[in-house]
Amino acid sequence: MAPQPDDQPMSAPDSQDRHEAISRLVKRFGDRVTTNDGIRNQHSNSLTWHAAEPPDVVVFAQDTGEVAEVVAIAAKYRMPIIPFGAGTSLEGHVNAPWGGISLDLSGMDAILCVNPGDLDCTVEAGVTRGALNSHLRDTGLFFSVDPGTQEATIGGMAATRASGTTAVRYGTMRDNVISLQAVMADGTVIDTASRAGKSAAGYDLTRLLVGSEGTLGIITQATVRLHGRPEAVIAAVAGFQSLDQACQVTMQAIAMGLGLARIELLDPLTLRAVNAHAGLSLPEIPTLFLEFHGTGNAVLEQSAAFEELARSEGAVSFESAGDEQDRRRLWKARHDGLWAIREAWPGRTVLVTDVCVPVSRLAECIAETQADIAAAGLTAPIVGHVGDGNFHALPLHDPANEAERQKILAFSDRLAERAIRMEGTCTGEHGVGQGKIGSLRKEMGAAVDVMASIKSALDPLGILNPEKIFRLS
Amino acid sequence: MAPQPDDQPMSAPDSQDRHEAISRLVKRFGDRVTTNDGIRNQHSNSLTWHAAEPPDVVVFAQDTGEVAEVVAIAAKYRMPIIPFGAGTSLEGHVNAPWGGISLDLSGMDAILCVNPGDLDCTVEAGVTRGALNSHLRDTGLFFSVDPGTQEATIGGMAATRASGTTAVRYGTMRDNVISLQAVMADGTVIDTASRAGKSAAGYDLTRLLVGSEGTLGIITQATVRLHGRPEAVIAAVAGFQSLDQACQVTMQAIAMGLGLARIELLDPLTLRAVNAHAGLSLPEIPTLFLEFHGTGNAVLEQSAAFEELARSEGAVSFESAGDEQDRRRLWKARHDGLWAIREAWPGRTVLVTDVCVPVSRLAECIAETQADIAAAGLTAPIVGHVGDGNFHALPLHDPANEAERQKILAFSDRLAERAIRMEGTCTGEHGVGQGKIGSLRKEMGAAVDVMASIKSALDPLGILNPEKIFRLS
Repeated sequence: MAPQPDDQPMSAPDSQDRHEAISRLVKRFGDRVTTNDGIRNQHSNSLTWHAAEPPDVVVFAQDTGEVAEVVAIAAKYRMPIIPFGAGTSLEGHVNAPWGGISLDLSGMDAILCVNPGDLDCTVEAGVTRGALNSHLRDTGLFFSVDPGTQEATIGGMAATRASGTTAVRYGTMRDNVISLQAVMADGTVIDTASRAGKSAAGYDLTRLLVGSEGTLGIITQATVRLHGRPEAVIAAVAGFQSLDQACQVTMQAIAMGLGLARIELLDPLTLRAVNAHAGLSLPEIPTLFLEFHGTGNAVLEQSAAFEELARSEGAVSFESAGDEQDRRRLWKARHDGLWAIREAWPGRTVLVTDVCVPVSRLAECIAETQADIAAAGLTAPIVGHVGDGNFHALPLHDPANEAERQKILAFSDRLAERAIRMEGTCTGEHGVGQGKIGSLRKEMGAAVDVMASIKSALDPLGILNPEKIFRLS
Repeated sequence: MAPQPDDQPMSAPDSQDRHEAISRLVKRFGDRVTTNDGIRNQHSNSLTWHAAEPPDVVVFAQDTGEVAEVVAIAAKYRMPIIPFGAGTSLEGHVNAPWGGISLDLSGMDAILCVNPGDLDCTVEAGVTRGALNSHLRDTGLFFSVDPGTQEATIGGMAATRASGTTAVRYGTMRDNVISLQAVMADGTVIDTASRAGKSAAGYDLTRLLVGSEGTLGIITQATVRLHGRPEAVIAAVAGFQSLDQACQVTMQAIAMGLGLARIELLDPLTLRAVNAHAGLSLPEIPTLFLEFHGTGNAVLEQSAAFEELARSEGAVSFESAGDEQDRRRLWKARHDGLWAIREAWPGRTVLVTDVCVPVSRLAECIAETQADIAAAGLTAPIVGHVGDGNFHALPLHDPANEAERQKILAFSDRLAERAIRMEGTCTGEHGVGQGKIGSLRKEMGAAVDVMASIKSALDPLGILNPEKIFRLS
């Protein structure tokens, strides 16, 4: 399958085109267009190891019609267009390797409607998950997907197929998006599905756009699933003698269908960082952080069943709490994990890896990864959404030291290959972006060509977030 | 977006090409190729109003490699290729309007592996849901999707995004397929995903193929999600004074998150047919058939909460049972519904409609549909997976009477338009096939062009199940 028509090579625009495109944008959008260095840099800012590659210009859009107008200008001048929400992605998704337009959707922050009877709501792409859940506070409903920051936008989360701590119970963005509105590369505005709870009406364009990382269309609205707040919640923390023990308990709990709402692993290095960060004195041992959601009886049964399982496998501690304040106290360490790690090793950068394996291979994959970290002489805390078989090893390095950088990149490649060998994926939730292009090919083989054919069919000029997921140039 | 390259018009093959293609197939596959009239007719047989359009030839494939060989021959001679599983689809999906090759995958019926630790299994496309669940009997696990026949194949169910009675709790094929192996139009064999429980590795080709109705690739293997058998099951039957009452109770139960595993509506006409068919004497009133799955305590709580809700809304009867034999007795009427209707009106054919609306619009949509049936003077039983907002009105007609046929087709169009107006879909679970092409355009608008662009990019010769979902000719 031909990746693109021969007469329309995908490449960076020339300087004349850039200049004219920016003039057109300024003429149309006035002071919502900027070439200010600070703002351009902020729009390519990265939370991880990817170096910033700023766009030529940032445009702040206010509605779907404006997005379509920007796309038309981008198409005319072959300017790359990079959708921007909160900039919390981890794989360089908002970088502009060919320059172009960063299209900031954060101003599209209207919650358009909430339908309690259908357990859904429709929002503009720039609504953050924090704002949405605040808005829902009095409805008894909540939006479940929790990638670890309140600032992430619903549009960005859909575009990267985000998940996080609650996916083991409530699913990822794949499961929680009902329909999307998107502007396609030719300016067409589509709705990908009706609001019906299920449908067999043609190709699943919703799921095609979820996880497409801005390369197929620009998501402007989303209708997402809501869940009833559980009648009761119990939080628990269980400490183990080894990572293997914690993994074995996780695997058994999943196979038994214990109904966990969250099950998160922190390794001793992470706990040490958290203790320093938050002034805590938690035991620095492999620890599972859990939540159980359900009726009062159900959560007591689940928590008791989990405690029995954990103790039978050698857990050294188990503490649980139902009261909200106590639950917050128990879970504080987990919520602060990534920030604590950054703080504990000042001046060093983390490469956030993201493999996910079938949960039955979790213990094996983590054990091999631990051995690899030791053999390579790396410092790499491990945290994981282990109920999904998803974990992040976070090798620390000095970004200015090229030898160190190459060493951790090689580690990341080995980790991805290990997960692929164990029937898993190089990325459970962060996406491909710029960082996993090579690993995606190793994992998916010829399926990447099918993806590229779709990309070329829907974006023949290659203007939508080029050089992400694959390189077509 | 151009639907296809101009130099490769999609059209039926000429007779010379047909002849040569069949010769090539016979040479390669011997007695697994047939042009026998009875077998060709059986491969285009329809359970509903679509007239049979037989293929030129039927090929029985035994593995993925053979499927790829058939695709290569089909491509060489521009022969349509129509995947065939059990032939239980309802929208003419297995018809061959341009002739071509019916590719029978029912012999690909190996269960390749079951992974209890990961709650998944991998099967060949021709495995039936009945065979899979028999195989799983001793594992404590089951495959949940239940479209109403044990004979449906997993490949066919994936291709049509099937759902049925359990979707309200366990989801549809969209939710229960982890990965697919497929042969694409150029003969490439792809795996759409790893076996990891979640992934952000590029475009979601799994979900793109689920529901693509054989138009984008031929599904040869599927890895599907399994669920633990519930510790306890309670079945229940609740009778109401009106369809509206039954709908109101359904809508409230869903909004309250009562955790129903099944909630099915039968109208009085259907119950009359069932009584005649099975020698029962059920009250011929609007009736909900329910199942609750969970722990012993949970199902008792759920059933009691539902009974309280139903009685407070005016239910005239409520009966429940936990014992398996009693549960079967209670549910018998539901399982026999469609067959009972066929038997009750001998010589008449059903058009099986399939709208699905947001559940909050269910009562309104059914009320308007009842009024429409009455005004049009039709006989049309109504059954529904009402927890999903999905129901089937089944207008009966004499297929030889063209005036009657046009009348029920007009009714079907009005019903689809009504559902679309209520933010729903023309097809909740049966797919577009040949029957909903016009309605799909009304529902999805420009999004159909996006689908057509994908189709043309992945199948430029238009050989994969042409004239289904849309017409590109």
